[in-house]
Amino acid sequence: MAEYNSQPLITAAQEFAKLPGIGLKTAQRLAYYILNAPEEEVEQFASGILRARRSMKLCSVCQNICNTDKCDICSDSRRNHKVICVVESPKDVSAIERSGGFDGVYHVLHGLLSPMNSIGPQQLKIKELMARLSDTDEVIMATSPTIEGEATATYLSRMIKQLGVKVTRLAYGLPAGASLEYADDVTLQRALENRNEI
Amino acid sequence: MAEYNSQPLITAAQEFAKLPGIGLKTAQRLAYYILNAPEEEVEQFASGILRARRSMKLCSVCQNICNTDKCDICSDSRRNHKVICVVESPKDVSAIERSGGFDGVYHVLHGLLSPMNSIGPQQLKIKELMARLSDTDEVIMATSPTIEGEATATYLSRMIKQLGVKVTRLAYGLPAGASLEYADDVTLQRALENRNEI
Repeated sequence: MAEYNSQPLITAAQEFAKLPGIGLKTAQRLAYYILNAPEEEVEQFASGILRARRSMKLCSVCQNICNTDKCDICSDSRRNHKVICVVESPKDVSAIERSGGFDGVYHVLHGLLSPMNSIGPQQLKIKELMARLSDTDEVIMATSPTIEGEATATYLSRMIKQLGVKVTRLAYGLPAGASLEYADDVTLQRALENRNEI
Repeated sequence: MAEYNSQPLITAAQEFAKLPGIGLKTAQRLAYYILNAPEEEVEQFASGILRARRSMKLCSVCQNICNTDKCDICSDSRRNHKVICVVESPKDVSAIERSGGFDGVYHVLHGLLSPMNSIGPQQLKIKELMARLSDTDEVIMATSPTIEGEATATYLSRMIKQLGVKVTRLAYGLPAGASLEYADDVTLQRALENRNEI
Protein backbone atom coordinates (compact mmCIF):
# COMPACT_ATOMS: atom_id res chain seq x y z
CA MET A 1 0.00 0.00 0.00
CA ALA A 2 1.24 3.47 -0.84
CA GLU A 3 2.54 5.81 1.80
CA TYR A 4 -0.17 8.09 3.14
CA ASN A 5 1.08 11.59 3.78
CA SER A 6 -0.63 14.92 3.49
CA GLN A 7 0.53 17.57 1.05
CA PRO A 8 2.19 20.01 3.48
CA LEU A 9 4.19 17.14 4.92
CA ILE A 10 5.28 15.94 1.50
CA THR A 11 6.33 19.46 0.44
CA ALA A 12 8.39 20.07 3.58
CA ALA A 13 9.95 16.61 3.53
CA GLN A 14 10.93 17.00 -0.14
CA GLU A 15 12.76 20.22 0.66
CA PHE A 16 14.69 18.65 3.53
CA ALA A 17 15.51 15.56 1.48
CA LYS A 18 17.41 17.81 -0.95
CA LEU A 19 20.03 18.47 1.74
CA PRO A 20 23.11 16.22 1.68
CA GLY A 21 23.03 13.28 4.08
CA ILE A 22 19.34 13.78 4.88
CA GLY A 23 17.43 10.64 3.92
CA LEU A 24 13.71 10.13 3.59
CA LYS A 25 13.11 9.23 7.25
CA THR A 26 15.07 12.17 8.62
CA ALA A 27 13.43 14.51 6.12
CA GLN A 28 9.99 13.38 7.32
CA ARG A 29 11.01 13.82 10.95
CA LEU A 30 12.21 17.36 10.25
CA ALA A 31 9.06 18.09 8.25
CA TYR A 32 6.87 17.01 11.18
CA TYR A 33 8.88 19.23 13.46
CA ILE A 34 8.53 22.22 11.13
CA LEU A 35 4.78 21.70 10.73
CA ASN A 36 4.32 21.54 14.50
CA ALA A 37 6.55 24.53 15.26
CA PRO A 38 5.03 28.01 15.67
CA GLU A 39 4.82 29.86 12.36
CA GLU A 40 7.16 32.67 13.56
CA GLU A 41 9.82 30.09 14.36
CA VAL A 42 9.59 28.62 10.87
CA GLU A 43 9.76 32.13 9.38
CA GLN A 44 12.87 32.81 11.44
CA PHE A 45 14.43 29.56 10.28
CA ALA A 46 13.72 30.19 6.60
CA SER A 47 14.83 33.82 6.69
CA GLY A 48 17.94 33.02 8.76
CA ILE A 49 19.16 30.56 6.18
CA LEU A 50 18.36 32.85 3.30
CA ARG A 51 20.06 35.77 5.06
CA ALA A 52 23.18 33.69 5.65
CA ARG A 53 23.29 32.69 1.99
CA ARG A 54 22.75 36.25 0.77
CA SER A 55 25.37 37.77 3.07
CA MET A 56 27.93 35.16 2.04
CA LYS A 57 30.99 36.48 0.24
CA LEU A 58 34.36 34.99 -0.52
CA CYS A 59 37.39 36.74 0.97
CA SER A 60 39.14 38.57 -1.88
CA VAL A 61 42.49 37.23 -0.68
CA CYS A 62 42.08 33.66 0.56
CA GLN A 63 38.64 32.83 -0.94
CA ASN A 64 37.32 31.61 2.42
CA ILE A 65 33.65 32.24 3.24
CA CYS A 66 33.06 35.54 5.04
CA ASN A 67 30.66 38.47 4.99
CA THR A 68 33.17 41.23 4.30
CA ASP A 69 35.63 41.89 1.51
CA LYS A 70 38.58 40.48 3.49
CA CYS A 71 38.23 37.75 6.10
CA ASP A 72 39.35 38.02 9.74
CA ILE A 73 42.39 35.83 9.20
CA CYS A 74 43.63 37.76 6.17
CA SER A 75 43.04 41.04 8.05
CA ASP A 76 44.98 39.86 11.11
CA SER A 77 48.41 41.57 11.14
CA ARG A 78 49.71 39.23 13.88
CA ARG A 79 49.59 36.27 11.51
CA ASN A 80 52.42 35.28 9.21
CA HIS A 81 51.25 36.28 5.75
CA LYS A 82 54.32 34.72 4.12
CA VAL A 83 53.14 31.17 4.81
CA ILE A 84 50.01 30.05 2.93
CA CYS A 85 48.20 26.84 3.79
CA VAL A 86 46.23 25.54 0.78
CA VAL A 87 43.05 23.64 1.70
CA GLU A 88 40.12 22.15 -0.14
CA SER A 89 37.24 23.84 1.70
CA PRO A 90 36.34 26.31 4.48
CA LYS A 91 35.75 23.30 6.77
CA ASP A 92 39.45 22.54 6.60
CA VAL A 93 40.28 26.09 7.71
CA SER A 94 38.07 25.54 10.78
CA ALA A 95 39.78 22.21 11.48
CA ILE A 96 43.32 23.61 11.26
CA GLU A 97 42.40 26.70 13.30
CA ARG A 98 40.92 24.42 15.96
CA SER A 99 44.20 22.49 16.16
CA GLY A 100 45.97 25.75 17.04
CA GLY A 101 49.10 24.57 15.22
CA PHE A 102 49.24 27.21 12.48
CA ASP A 103 49.71 30.97 12.51
CA GLY A 104 50.00 31.65 8.79
CA VAL A 105 47.20 32.37 6.35
CA TYR A 106 45.05 30.14 4.14
CA HIS A 107 43.97 29.68 0.58
CA VAL A 108 40.70 27.84 -0.04
CA LEU A 109 40.52 26.01 -3.39
CA HIS A 110 36.78 25.21 -3.10
CA GLY A 111 37.25 21.70 -4.42
CA LEU A 112 39.90 19.30 -5.70
CA LEU A 113 40.95 18.41 -9.22
CA SER A 114 38.76 15.55 -10.37
CA PRO A 115 38.70 14.66 -14.07
CA MET A 116 36.00 12.05 -13.30
CA ASN A 117 33.64 14.82 -12.20
CA SER A 118 35.01 17.21 -14.85
CA ILE A 119 36.54 19.51 -12.24
CA GLY A 120 39.64 21.01 -13.82
CA PRO A 121 41.95 23.84 -12.71
CA GLN A 122 39.48 26.44 -14.01
CA GLN A 123 36.82 25.33 -11.53
CA LEU A 124 39.12 25.85 -8.54
CA LYS A 125 40.55 29.05 -7.03
CA ILE A 126 43.98 28.32 -8.50
CA LYS A 127 44.34 31.55 -10.50
CA GLU A 128 43.73 33.49 -7.26
CA LEU A 129 46.39 31.43 -5.46
CA MET A 130 49.02 31.96 -8.13
CA ALA A 131 48.30 35.71 -8.09
CA ARG A 132 49.18 36.10 -4.41
CA LEU A 133 52.49 34.23 -4.28
CA SER A 134 54.85 37.17 -5.04
CA ASP A 135 55.80 37.73 -1.39
CA THR A 136 55.39 34.15 -0.08
CA ASP A 137 58.05 32.04 1.67
CA GLU A 138 56.21 28.72 1.85
CA VAL A 139 53.05 27.09 0.57
CA ILE A 140 51.77 24.16 2.66
CA MET A 141 49.66 21.68 0.71
CA ALA A 142 47.00 20.65 3.22
CA THR A 143 44.65 18.71 0.93
CA SER A 144 43.39 15.34 2.17
CA PRO A 145 45.57 12.28 1.56
CA THR A 146 43.10 10.90 -1.00
CA ILE A 147 43.70 10.31 -4.70
CA GLU A 148 42.18 13.65 -5.63
CA GLY A 149 43.87 15.47 -2.78
CA GLU A 150 47.26 14.07 -3.80
CA ALA A 151 46.72 14.86 -7.47
CA THR A 152 45.78 18.45 -6.66
CA ALA A 153 48.77 18.86 -4.36
CA THR A 154 51.15 17.47 -6.99
CA TYR A 155 49.66 19.63 -9.76
CA LEU A 156 49.89 22.81 -7.67
CA SER A 157 53.34 22.11 -6.26
CA ARG A 158 54.79 21.81 -9.76
CA MET A 159 53.33 25.18 -10.73
CA ILE A 160 54.40 26.89 -7.50
CA LYS A 161 57.96 25.52 -7.48
CA GLN A 162 58.49 27.15 -10.88
CA LEU A 163 58.00 30.50 -9.11
CA GLY A 164 60.80 29.61 -6.69
CA VAL A 165 58.48 29.26 -3.71
CA LYS A 166 59.03 26.42 -1.22
CA VAL A 167 56.20 23.88 -1.21
CA THR A 168 55.56 21.44 1.66
CA ARG A 169 53.00 18.73 2.30
CA LEU A 170 51.29 17.71 5.57
CA ALA A 171 53.08 14.79 7.24
CA TYR A 172 51.82 11.25 6.72
CA GLY A 173 51.79 8.85 9.63
CA LEU A 174 49.74 7.26 12.36
CA PRO A 175 46.90 9.39 13.72
CA ALA A 176 47.12 10.24 17.42
CA GLY A 177 45.55 7.59 19.62
CA ALA A 178 45.59 5.02 16.81
CA SER A 179 46.22 1.36 17.41
CA LEU A 180 49.01 -0.14 15.27
CA GLU A 181 46.99 -3.31 14.95
CA TYR A 182 44.22 -1.53 13.03
CA ALA A 183 46.36 0.83 10.93
CA ASP A 184 46.07 0.16 7.18
CA ASP A 185 49.09 -0.91 5.15
CA VAL A 186 49.64 2.37 3.32
CA THR A 187 49.55 4.37 6.55
CA LEU A 188 52.00 1.97 8.21
CA GLN A 189 54.34 2.08 5.21
CA ARG A 190 54.32 5.87 5.26
CA ALA A 191 54.78 6.00 9.03
CA LEU A 192 57.88 3.80 8.63
CA GLU A 193 59.28 5.77 5.70
CA ASN A 194 58.85 9.07 7.50
CA ARG A 195 60.11 7.84 10.88
CA ASN A 196 61.83 10.44 13.06
CA GLU A 197 64.78 10.16 15.42
CA ILE A 198 63.76 10.60 19.02
CA MET B 1 41.67 27.51 20.57
CA ALA B 2 38.23 28.77 19.66
CA GLU B 3 36.46 27.52 16.57
CA TYR B 4 37.08 29.78 13.59
CA ASN B 5 34.02 30.21 11.47
CA SER B 6 32.75 33.11 9.45
CA GLN B 7 29.49 34.85 10.27
CA PRO B 8 27.31 33.51 7.41
CA LEU B 9 28.38 30.01 8.34
CA ILE B 10 27.59 30.52 12.02
CA THR B 11 24.17 32.00 11.22
CA ALA B 12 23.18 29.14 8.92
CA ALA B 13 24.57 26.46 11.23
CA GLN B 14 22.70 27.93 14.21
CA GLU B 15 19.43 27.72 12.29
CA PHE B 16 19.99 24.08 11.35
CA ALA B 17 21.09 23.19 14.88
CA LYS B 18 17.61 24.22 16.10
CA LEU B 19 16.12 21.24 14.28
CA PRO B 20 15.64 18.06 16.33
CA GLY B 21 18.37 15.45 15.97
CA ILE B 22 20.68 17.83 14.11
CA GLY B 23 23.89 18.22 16.08
CA LEU B 24 26.64 20.80 15.66
CA LYS B 25 28.62 18.81 13.08
CA THR B 26 25.61 18.07 10.89
CA ALA B 27 24.41 21.67 11.20
CA GLN B 28 27.80 22.89 9.96
CA ARG B 29 27.74 20.43 7.09
CA LEU B 30 24.28 21.59 6.04
CA ALA B 31 25.35 25.23 6.43
CA TYR B 32 28.32 24.68 4.10
CA TYR B 33 26.01 23.07 1.60
CA ILE B 34 23.56 25.97 1.74
CA LEU B 35 26.30 28.57 1.38
CA ASN B 36 27.70 26.78 -1.67
CA ALA B 37 24.33 26.18 -3.32
CA PRO B 38 22.99 28.63 -5.94
CA GLU B 39 20.97 31.42 -4.35
CA GLU B 40 17.77 30.44 -6.21
CA GLU B 41 18.01 26.95 -4.77
CA VAL B 42 18.29 28.31 -1.23
CA GLU B 43 15.33 30.62 -1.90
CA GLN B 44 13.32 27.65 -3.10
CA PHE B 45 14.27 25.66 -0.01
CA ALA B 46 13.35 28.45 2.41
CA SER B 47 10.09 29.30 0.67
CA GLY B 48 9.13 25.63 0.26
CA ILE B 49 9.37 25.03 3.97
CA LEU B 50 7.54 28.22 4.82
CA ARG B 51 4.82 27.43 2.28
CA ALA B 52 4.36 23.96 3.73
CA ARG B 53 4.04 25.37 7.25
CA ARG B 54 1.58 28.07 6.14
CA SER B 55 -0.63 25.70 4.16
CA MET B 56 -0.76 23.26 7.09
CA LYS B 57 -4.21 22.74 8.59
CA LEU B 58 -5.59 20.09 10.89
CA CYS B 59 -8.48 17.99 9.55
CA SER B 60 -11.63 19.18 11.30
CA VAL B 61 -12.63 15.56 11.97
CA CYS B 62 -9.53 13.51 12.77
CA GLN B 63 -7.05 16.35 13.51
CA ASN B 64 -4.46 14.86 11.15
CA ILE B 65 -2.24 17.26 9.20
CA CYS B 66 -3.71 18.22 5.83
CA ASN B 67 -4.16 21.29 3.64
CA THR B 68 -7.93 21.19 3.35
CA ASP B 69 -10.75 21.31 5.87
CA LYS B 70 -11.22 17.53 5.82
CA CYS B 71 -8.42 15.08 5.13
CA ASP B 72 -8.44 12.45 2.37
CA ILE B 73 -9.07 9.59 4.78
CA CYS B 74 -12.03 11.28 6.49
CA SER B 75 -13.46 12.20 3.06
CA ASP B 76 -13.16 8.62 1.75
CA SER B 77 -16.62 7.03 1.73
CA ARG B 78 -15.16 3.55 1.13
CA ARG B 79 -13.59 3.53 4.59
CA ASN B 80 -15.38 2.34 7.71
CA HIS B 81 -16.19 5.52 9.63
CA LYS B 82 -17.54 3.54 12.59
CA VAL B 83 -14.09 2.32 13.65
CA ILE B 84 -11.72 4.99 14.92
CA CYS B 85 -8.05 4.29 15.50
CA VAL B 86 -6.58 6.69 18.09
CA VAL B 87 -2.90 7.53 17.54
CA GLU B 88 -0.35 9.89 19.03
CA SER B 89 0.86 11.68 15.90
CA PRO B 90 0.42 11.95 12.12
CA LYS B 91 3.51 9.71 11.75
CA ASP B 92 1.51 6.86 13.27
CA VAL B 93 -1.24 7.33 10.68
CA SER B 94 1.40 6.95 7.95
CA ALA B 95 2.77 3.82 9.64
CA ILE B 96 -0.63 2.12 9.99
CA GLU B 97 -1.65 3.11 6.45
CA ARG B 98 1.59 1.63 5.17
CA SER B 99 0.81 -1.67 6.90
CA GLY B 100 -2.42 -1.86 4.92
CA GLY B 101 -4.18 -3.60 7.79
CA PHE B 102 -6.80 -0.99 8.61
CA ASP B 103 -9.74 0.43 6.67
CA GLY B 104 -11.34 2.55 9.39
CA VAL B 105 -10.60 6.18 10.20
CA TYR B 106 -8.15 7.84 12.59
CA HIS B 107 -8.00 10.32 15.41
CA VAL B 108 -4.70 12.08 16.04
CA LEU B 109 -4.14 13.18 19.66
CA HIS B 110 -1.01 15.25 18.88
CA GLY B 111 0.77 13.99 21.96
CA LEU B 112 0.37 11.74 24.97
CA LEU B 113 -0.59 12.50 28.54
CA SER B 114 2.59 13.32 30.41
CA PRO B 115 2.31 14.95 33.84
CA MET B 116 6.12 15.20 33.93
CA ASN B 117 6.04 17.54 30.92
CA SER B 118 2.77 19.14 32.12
CA ILE B 119 0.80 17.74 29.21
CA GLY B 120 -2.73 17.13 30.47
CA PRO B 121 -5.96 16.23 28.65
CA GLN B 122 -6.48 19.88 27.63
CA GLN B 123 -3.28 19.88 25.56
CA LEU B 124 -4.41 16.88 23.49
CA LYS B 125 -7.21 16.56 20.93
CA ILE B 126 -9.39 14.61 23.40
CA LYS B 127 -12.38 16.97 23.35
CA GLU B 128 -12.50 16.54 19.55
CA LEU B 129 -12.37 12.76 19.93
CA MET B 130 -15.20 12.61 22.46
CA ALA B 131 -17.35 14.86 20.21
CA ARG B 132 -17.25 12.40 17.28
CA LEU B 133 -18.12 9.14 19.06
CA SER B 134 -21.92 9.30 18.69
CA ASP B 135 -22.03 6.92 15.71
CA THR B 136 -18.94 4.82 16.52
CA ASP B 137 -18.78 1.04 16.96
CA GLU B 138 -15.22 0.67 18.13
CA VAL B 139 -12.26 2.79 19.22
CA ILE B 140 -8.84 1.18 18.79
CA MET B 141 -6.18 2.55 21.12
CA ALA B 142 -3.04 2.55 18.98
CA THR B 143 -0.72 4.52 21.24
CA SER B 144 2.81 3.15 21.72
CA PRO B 145 3.35 0.54 24.46
CA THR B 146 5.31 3.03 26.59
CA ILE B 147 4.37 4.35 30.04
CA GLU B 148 2.82 7.47 28.57
CA GLY B 149 1.14 5.60 25.75
CA GLU B 150 -0.40 3.12 28.21
CA ALA B 151 -1.51 5.88 30.57
CA THR B 152 -3.18 7.78 27.75
CA ALA B 153 -4.90 4.61 26.45
CA THR B 154 -6.18 3.76 29.94
CA TYR B 155 -7.40 7.29 30.58
CA LEU B 156 -9.24 7.50 27.26
CA SER B 157 -10.69 4.00 27.41
CA ARG B 158 -12.35 4.77 30.77
CA MET B 159 -13.99 7.87 29.34
CA ILE B 160 -15.06 6.18 26.12
CA LYS B 161 -16.47 3.04 27.76
CA GLN B 162 -18.85 5.27 29.72
CA LEU B 163 -20.41 6.23 26.38
CA GLY B 164 -21.06 2.55 25.68
CA VAL B 165 -18.50 2.36 22.88
CA LYS B 166 -16.25 -0.70 22.56
CA VAL B 167 -12.58 0.08 23.19
CA THR B 168 -9.73 -2.18 22.04
CA ARG B 169 -5.94 -2.01 22.32
CA LEU B 170 -3.27 -3.08 19.80
CA ALA B 171 -2.01 -6.62 20.52
CA TYR B 172 1.18 -7.12 22.50
CA GLY B 173 3.62 -9.80 21.49
CA LEU B 174 6.74 -10.62 19.59
CA PRO B 175 7.54 -8.40 16.61
CA ALA B 176 7.73 -10.18 13.25
CA GLY B 177 11.20 -11.54 12.53
CA ALA B 178 12.22 -11.24 16.17
CA SER B 179 14.51 -13.73 17.83
CA LEU B 180 13.14 -15.21 21.08
CA GLU B 181 16.63 -15.14 22.52
CA TYR B 182 16.76 -11.34 22.39
CA ALA B 183 13.17 -10.57 23.34
CA ASP B 184 12.89 -8.61 26.59
CA ASP B 185 11.11 -10.09 29.63
CA VAL B 186 7.99 -7.92 29.44
CA THR B 187 7.47 -8.68 25.76
CA LEU B 188 7.91 -12.42 26.37
CA GLN B 189 5.52 -12.35 29.32
CA ARG B 190 2.89 -10.57 27.24
CA ALA B 191 3.43 -12.89 24.28
CA LEU B 192 2.79 -15.86 26.60
CA GLU B 193 -0.25 -14.30 28.26
CA ASN B 194 -1.82 -13.41 24.92
CA ARG B 195 -0.99 -16.72 23.21
CA ASN B 196 -3.43 -17.87 20.54
CA GLU B 197 -4.62 -21.33 19.59
CA ILE B 198 -3.35 -22.38 16.17
